[in-house]
Amino acid sequence: MRRGGERGPHRDGWGIAFYDGKGCRAFHDPQPSARSEIARFIRGYAIKSRVVICHIRRAGRSRVALENTHPFARELWGRNWNFAHNGELKGIKKLPLAYYRPIGSTDSEHAFCWMMDRLRERWEKPPPSRTLISRLGDLSRTVAGHGTFNMLLSDGRYLYCFGDTALVWLTRRAPFGPATLIDKDLTVDFSKETTPNDVVTVVATGPLTRDERWTAVAKKSLIAFRDGTLIG
Amino acid sequence: MRRGGERGPHRDGWGIAFYDGKGCRAFHDPQPSARSEIARFIRGYAIKSRVVICHIRRAGRSRVALENTHPFARELWGRNWNFAHNGELKGIKKLPLAYYRPIGSTDSEHAFCWMMDRLRERWEKPPPSRTLISRLGDLSRTVAGHGTFNMLLSDGRYLYCFGDTALVWLTRRAPFGPATLIDKDLTVDFSKETTPNDVVTVVATGPLTRDERWTAVAKKSLIAFRDGTLIG
Repeated sequence: MRRGGERGPHRDGWGIAFYDGKGCRAFHDPQPSARSEIARFIRGYAIKSRVVICHIRRAGRSRVALENTHPFARELWGRNWNFAHNGELKGIKKLPLAYYRPIGSTDSEHAFCWMMDRLRERWEKPPPSRTLISRLGDLSRTVAGHGTFNMLLSDGRYLYCFGDTALVWLTRRAPFGPATLIDKDLTVDFSKETTPNDVVTVVATGPLTRDERWTAVAKKSLIAFRDGTLIG
Repeated sequence: MRRGGERGPHRDGWGIAFYDGKGCRAFHDPQPSARSEIARFIRGYAIKSRVVICHIRRAGRSRVALENTHPFARELWGRNWNFAHNGELKGIKKLPLAYYRPIGSTDSEHAFCWMMDRLRERWEKPPPSRTLISRLGDLSRTVAGHGTFNMLLSDGRYLYCFGDTALVWLTRRAPFGPATLIDKDLTVDFSKETTPNDVVTVVATGPLTRDERWTAVAKKSLIAFRDGTLIG
């Protein structure tokens, strides 16, 4: 909340998607998250989810509007896919689209539609996960050739993360301990928020805590997680 | 809220979609609306919208789950389409799908995907509104041949309503007056909630107020509204 217009420049809206089985709850607001009524509501609402994608926006050339607010969502292979992007892209709208069309006017949504198109045209059903991870890496590198492409993508089972200029991650497992947020003098004791069997991975464009060890995603590479565990 | 599990049998979840330009805010909850935290939040949240679609669910054969909760949404022609259905359908899943696939397991979402498929296969861009209204009427009658199909559908500009066994509507214009809700001893004075230029149409499966004149949609026919005005 605070990064969106208070502790950071990303004041042009925010969005969050929580998967619940094959379903997904998504909240979007073109208001800065620091002033958002919906953000305040979600803070107090105990949503449990295996995959969550969140984005705070600093608008490039596209206007501040609900339809330009990440994460963007589309159905593919009977699953709900969500996508969020950090960075700017140039000339991406020259990449032709076949099935998926953007609703808003951002380069990000165009890139997402293009990637979904490429998956759909090649496979009628989901391919093996290694094959898909490899293909998503190739597609991401093509998009990244147009600018900067730090990206999160999920179908609710897997979380795919493409690191370009800035993407870091960490996995928390038992024994859980305390961690101190970077944006606020607040220490969270994860042993009180988790069970010993939980595996919790966080991926972000920069470390969110000051006393944990975050790993940088190798430049121009795609990694994937399932149930919090790195799988490729 | 009260109809979902308190004053009525529709306790298997509820959902609502508010259009804001080309964007859309949607909230879904498999909890009964009478007990829903999200419903309480929305009640206090001043969302303005030109088209709103709301649904409270009584599950048929498909389980109570987020992905089975109406309204369902898909992108077509660069617009966000939302769909809600009242009634039961039999054998609808035998209708083949080409492009759109259900995420959940309801007959309703299958019928929605089938209708979107038929529009997509015929037109690359939106046809004239009269043509589209006529086609949607034909498609709805085909779906209604499988059971009961009271339906609301929108792309954010037009609201399409198919009346099968039960669908009523009314339009409120200046001078606005009071109306008394059917479910609750509550009178709303619309002159305090509106401006003289507003045109407000409500479509529902039964009258929501006891002192206004509701018009029944003719059986097996589709009507459409734009900006609150009946256009066909």
